[in-house]
Amino acid sequence: MRNFKLTLAYDGADFSGWQVQPGRSTVQGALAEALGRVTGETVLPQGSGRTDAGVHALAQVATVALASPIPPANLVKALNDVLPPAIRLLQAEEVPLSFHARASARAKTYRYRILSGELCPPFLVRYVYHHRGPLDESAMTAVAPLVGGEHDFTSFAAFDPERAQRMGQRDAPSNVRTLFSSTFARQGDELIYTVRGSGFLHHMVRNLVGTFLLIGKGNLAATDIPRILEARDRSANPAATAPASGLYLVSVEY
Amino acid sequence: MRNFKLTLAYDGADFSGWQVQPGRSTVQGALAEALGRVTGETVLPQGSGRTDAGVHALAQVATVALASPIPPANLVKALNDVLPPAIRLLQAEEVPLSFHARASARAKTYRYRILSGELCPPFLVRYVYHHRGPLDESAMTAVAPLVGGEHDFTSFAAFDPERAQRMGQRDAPSNVRTLFSSTFARQGDELIYTVRGSGFLHHMVRNLVGTFLLIGKGNLAATDIPRILEARDRSANPAATAPASGLYLVSVEY
Repeated sequence: MRNFKLTLAYDGADFSGWQVQPGRSTVQGALAEALGRVTGETVLPQGSGRTDAGVHALAQVATVALASPIPPANLVKALNDVLPPAIRLLQAEEVPLSFHARASARAKTYRYRILSGELCPPFLVRYVYHHRGPLDESAMTAVAPLVGGEHDFTSFAAFDPERAQRMGQRDAPSNVRTLFSSTFARQGDELIYTVRGSGFLHHMVRNLVGTFLLIGKGNLAATDIPRILEARDRSANPAATAPASGLYLVSVEY
Repeated sequence: MRNFKLTLAYDGADFSGWQVQPGRSTVQGALAEALGRVTGETVLPQGSGRTDAGVHALAQVATVALASPIPPANLVKALNDVLPPAIRLLQAEEVPLSFHARASARAKTYRYRILSGELCPPFLVRYVYHHRGPLDESAMTAVAPLVGGEHDFTSFAAFDPERAQRMGQRDAPSNVRTLFSSTFARQGDELIYTVRGSGFLHHMVRNLVGTFLLIGKGNLAATDIPRILEARDRSANPAATAPASGLYLVSVEY
């Protein structure tokens, strides 16, 4: 048995997210099917984490154990021949059996693209969040680093009934994560949020962006951020989850 | 009655082309529906020409006569509110009733994006033609201007049985067009073909690109171009029609 680390880019617009679901087109499902066609093995590659429907990846990482003796370079070529063109395998490496895409990850970087202005060019609709109307960018830029460091991010996590149920059954999983950096930068017509952290809760980046958008619209003040963080309660955060189209998993570090 | 000139951009990837067709999603159909919702009038906007399924436009032009007294700036805003996001109205102007998007056009510019290299990033799949394997770019660059000037472009037109039928019934329509410029240029990872002409036959740009690709692959020589042109016969041209995804209607001049 050999363990492979696969690095993938995908346009998430036409997928129902990473995680395999019956009857839905998913990235994990498409990758599993391609691996089956290439190797004849029935496997389920494990990602560094799930991305939601519409979320993109510049370099998602997955691991899969294969019996097939195929050399990594041939695996890249063979998988790209059968994968849908919206998913491209960038690299395949053989790694120790102990390596696991999710469990071994030490940091992840996400990017969120906000296009401001009256009109969203049709070629960017799938790839940005288009915000009409003015945004106070300097306020957003000033506030973004306030979520840096180690915090319980429950106020920025998705409402998760399943999770709540699990919490009653065994030790509550921790919502503490560490953000190493959290910054906004302007690139041409876009305002780009980049966040690097030890790990992320479900919807966490999109909820952070949603919160920063309320700052940009003047509906929240900088002083609200520590208050929302300390509440450890999603309902203490008035922000909507920002749309999936602007979000990119940029890289996973090991 | 007022005559409006509408300038539109669209991502053609998910449309069955410009021209309205029952049961299909088309740009002309979507624009007609949006005009109906905004003005209450049942109209069919006339484009400068048809674009095929998958072909994009940076600035397609259409004309439509409306009874509605809506100011042009309001028409832009109202149409963009109801149009699918893959179509954006860039401008609306009131023009003399004699102005017609197709009949008044004096020149059009098209662009064709060829991405060469092993891998096509998933975010470009809808927006370029991806060519694996080497291309002799200097040969393509040298040959492109050979089709400039006034020629009968039948060898670069689509096979068109309907047209052949019409030709038996009345005067044969002319396949003579004038190309003002025809050039390749490299932009980063892409080889870009730009052509400006008095008008274009169906599939003409894609057949020109298909022919230049045979030059780039060494399957045709520069001396074949005048021979193919002079044949005035599509079957004298061994080139396949290049895929729609790389083609953009850039502008229409009046």
